[in-house]
Amino acid sequence: MTIQKVYDLIDARREQYLETLFTLLRQKSISTQKIGIEECANLLKGMMEEAGIHTKIIETEGHSVVYGEIIKDPNAFTLLLYGHYDVQPPDPIDEWISPPFIPIIRDNKIFARGSSDNKGQLMAHVLAIKTYLDVYGELPINVKFVFEGEEEQGSINLESFVSDNRELLKADLVYTSDGPSHQSGAPLIILGVRGLLYVELKATGANIDNHSGNKGNVVPNPVWKLFELLRTMRDEKGEILIEGFYDNVREPSNYEKELIKKLPFNREEVGKQIGYPSLDLDGETFYRKLTMEPTFNIAGIQSGYNGEGMKTIIPSTATLKMDIRLVVDQTPEEIFGKLCNHVKKHAPDIEVTKLGMFHPSRTLADLELINIIKNALEEVSGREAIIQPSMGGSLPDYVWTKILKAPSIIVPYANYDQANHSPNENLDVDYFFNGIKYTCSVINRLADQVNKGRMVATNQVNK
Amino acid sequence: MTIQKVYDLIDARREQYLETLFTLLRQKSISTQKIGIEECANLLKGMMEEAGIHTKIIETEGHSVVYGEIIKDPNAFTLLLYGHYDVQPPDPIDEWISPPFIPIIRDNKIFARGSSDNKGQLMAHVLAIKTYLDVYGELPINVKFVFEGEEEQGSINLESFVSDNRELLKADLVYTSDGPSHQSGAPLIILGVRGLLYVELKATGANIDNHSGNKGNVVPNPVWKLFELLRTMRDEKGEILIEGFYDNVREPSNYEKELIKKLPFNREEVGKQIGYPSLDLDGETFYRKLTMEPTFNIAGIQSGYNGEGMKTIIPSTATLKMDIRLVVDQTPEEIFGKLCNHVKKHAPDIEVTKLGMFHPSRTLADLELINIIKNALEEVSGREAIIQPSMGGSLPDYVWTKILKAPSIIVPYANYDQANHSPNENLDVDYFFNGIKYTCSVINRLADQVNKGRMVATNQVNK
Repeated sequence: MTIQKVYDLIDARREQYLETLFTLLRQKSISTQKIGIEECANLLKGMMEEAGIHTKIIETEGHSVVYGEIIKDPNAFTLLLYGHYDVQPPDPIDEWISPPFIPIIRDNKIFARGSSDNKGQLMAHVLAIKTYLDVYGELPINVKFVFEGEEEQGSINLESFVSDNRELLKADLVYTSDGPSHQSGAPLIILGVRGLLYVELKATGANIDNHSGNKGNVVPNPVWKLFELLRTMRDEKGEILIEGFYDNVREPSNYEKELIKKLPFNREEVGKQIGYPSLDLDGETFYRKLTMEPTFNIAGIQSGYNGEGMKTIIPSTATLKMDIRLVVDQTPEEIFGKLCNHVKKHAPDIEVTKLGMFHPSRTLADLELINIIKNALEEVSGREAIIQPSMGGSLPDYVWTKILKAPSIIVPYANYDQANHSPNENLDVDYFFNGIKYTCSVINRLADQVNKGRMVATNQVNK
Repeated sequence: MTIQKVYDLIDARREQYLETLFTLLRQKSISTQKIGIEECANLLKGMMEEAGIHTKIIETEGHSVVYGEIIKDPNAFTLLLYGHYDVQPPDPIDEWISPPFIPIIRDNKIFARGSSDNKGQLMAHVLAIKTYLDVYGELPINVKFVFEGEEEQGSINLESFVSDNRELLKADLVYTSDGPSHQSGAPLIILGVRGLLYVELKATGANIDNHSGNKGNVVPNPVWKLFELLRTMRDEKGEILIEGFYDNVREPSNYEKELIKKLPFNREEVGKQIGYPSLDLDGETFYRKLTMEPTFNIAGIQSGYNGEGMKTIIPSTATLKMDIRLVVDQTPEEIFGKLCNHVKKHAPDIEVTKLGMFHPSRTLADLELINIIKNALEEVSGREAIIQPSMGGSLPDYVWTKILKAPSIIVPYANYDQANHSPNENLDVDYFFNGIKYTCSVINRLADQVNKGRMVATNQVNK
């Protein structure tokens, strides 16, 4: 029996599998707003059981983890599939062409909040298992599933969950499908992530909004306080002036630099996809800035009156949301400490609140396993896979590499223009079905290699 | 018959006059949001007619003016009472203790949007006329009323209205009751206003909100663009760096400096009232900054995600609302031109939109009329009146001094802690009734002086 039978069954079940995904997308699960989380976890559990996976909901301090497993033999190779069932808020809701929680297909894309980030990608794993079991009756390796409900909040309880369940989660490889594929459409293997420190700064002026005329010049404006602080944090060129900010940034290795140079890049295409046609970077610079350098981003700022027309006030408060992406070997704790010291020195009355954090991670770029995955993906797509030393975004990848101490890779299944975190988030229908096949192929190839007794060397080459 | 009969009748009608004001306050009239304007104009017209004033609604390019008059004799002294029936938006609505359009008395204060700014103050005029007529059967001078509906939008059509109706509006003195009284509670006469230039700046990054990880460092952030522009506009000390910004600021005269020095000031009391107990200015500095210096205020800023928790995006747009108060002899046109030139030079892709403007004004501080008014106010209050050379806020006062070419003074009737433009705007009940009496007293004293043939010399003294 060949794997082709599995692929054929996937193709035959397109309508059914789309409907399963749509059912999951209709269920809101906005973690930061605590909307629909429990309902979504239960719905997902039911779908996994229906696929033949032994599933349970494991409570954490926050939102539950939906855990599943199919154990063939405790000594067999174990693949752990990680994903998250929570989604970003849909704001700004007016900019959606169709409602965010009513999935619809337009131009061969599924439009819905969570379609690509991450419900479509985790469902690809579940449906792969279902198909594989329906064809073969069993899996050739052990598979475990960790689908969490707090990724969009910074996976605040995932580290303790993994730490508390090391035995349960023990695995030979952690495999995450999240984020966008490469814009060329070729399969993509990513060997690390940037970290994240997300903070909110709150500045206060008077206790009340004052009239800007009757009080103008005599009460302080909290927006100016924020601006004055930011002026001390970042120079005109975008260099961060917080003491020690860059101290632990690891210089990319020669091997990583080579990988970056080899990444395909079409400036015009990328510029179009990110809504910024005047993008003026070459590929090497683009990927270096995106994967090997930290960011200092303002994700939101709000103060005073922002409705139509004029309101003449001096606002009483101003808040600023900053997300700072980190690269190895920066840590969010270290950067948060340095940031707090800076604020204390320059604007001691501005409050700093930590809203979330992820450690950065980077896996060595030469595990033999990676070649197996590469071949599996190439078999399905017929295209050469791309290996990227890190992604620009953040995932709680360090919990696998640092806590579970397993190698961890990321193989995104979404289209590049998925618009995750934006209005009109979408998942290309063909990418969804390719994703299901990718997971089947990976399981098949891993089993093949295990059978040949060639598992698992971690020799380092080409450093 | 003495004026005391009028005061007694006002006291006897407290319940009735409060109910009249409440009826007007219940009628929304939010000019910037175009809510309830026409309804409010009609309601006010009815109330004025009921008081015995010949009233008509005069259309403009924008919201209508409610015009009223009682003409005793075309050659008699004419007092023009100016006010506005529109109000600020009630945002942030959550911070109101009671709903903004359901007036209620707590602690002897009327809480409602518009209670003090400006419906309570204009109703004081209307009810003064009503009482005066009910006691005397006629007025001893001519009185005209201009109640406009666009003051909170910058009185965009008042200049053309005055310009088109010079004959109709011809007056010997324009008298405005708006803004807060002095915090000491003594009657206050103000001889000018600061001007206003209100602009919105809009910065754009990519066409869509991008994921801050997957795109972080490679698309521009519009908030940083605004920050970089503001950095070129204002230094750390708050000095404005726009070329020529201070060129036309008029140095206060010695007489004005004297008036400022004489203004009573209780730092602790003021600090408490503006919600800023750590206010650290002496009275002379406070009033100089408040009345003789321009401001550069941020009234609102908005970009990205500002809900609960985290959203990890690079916003596509950022908007900033600035209100800049001007002093004589700055003009809003001049400052707008200089601002636009600055933006063009430093951030040509940031859009600037002008939302409103007022010219500053200042009346000579020594008209004999002012003494008549001063005596009238002192008669009612039993306290020495304060003369302030300018107010911190803006009113379209220049339309009287520059277009109608009449002397113009401002006598605020609201309590100092009125919280106008803020949640929980209020008008002290006693201030309201004192206001009614002030208008009666002013009419009475002006008539008295006219009868004595002592009107109206404009000799300049003490310069």
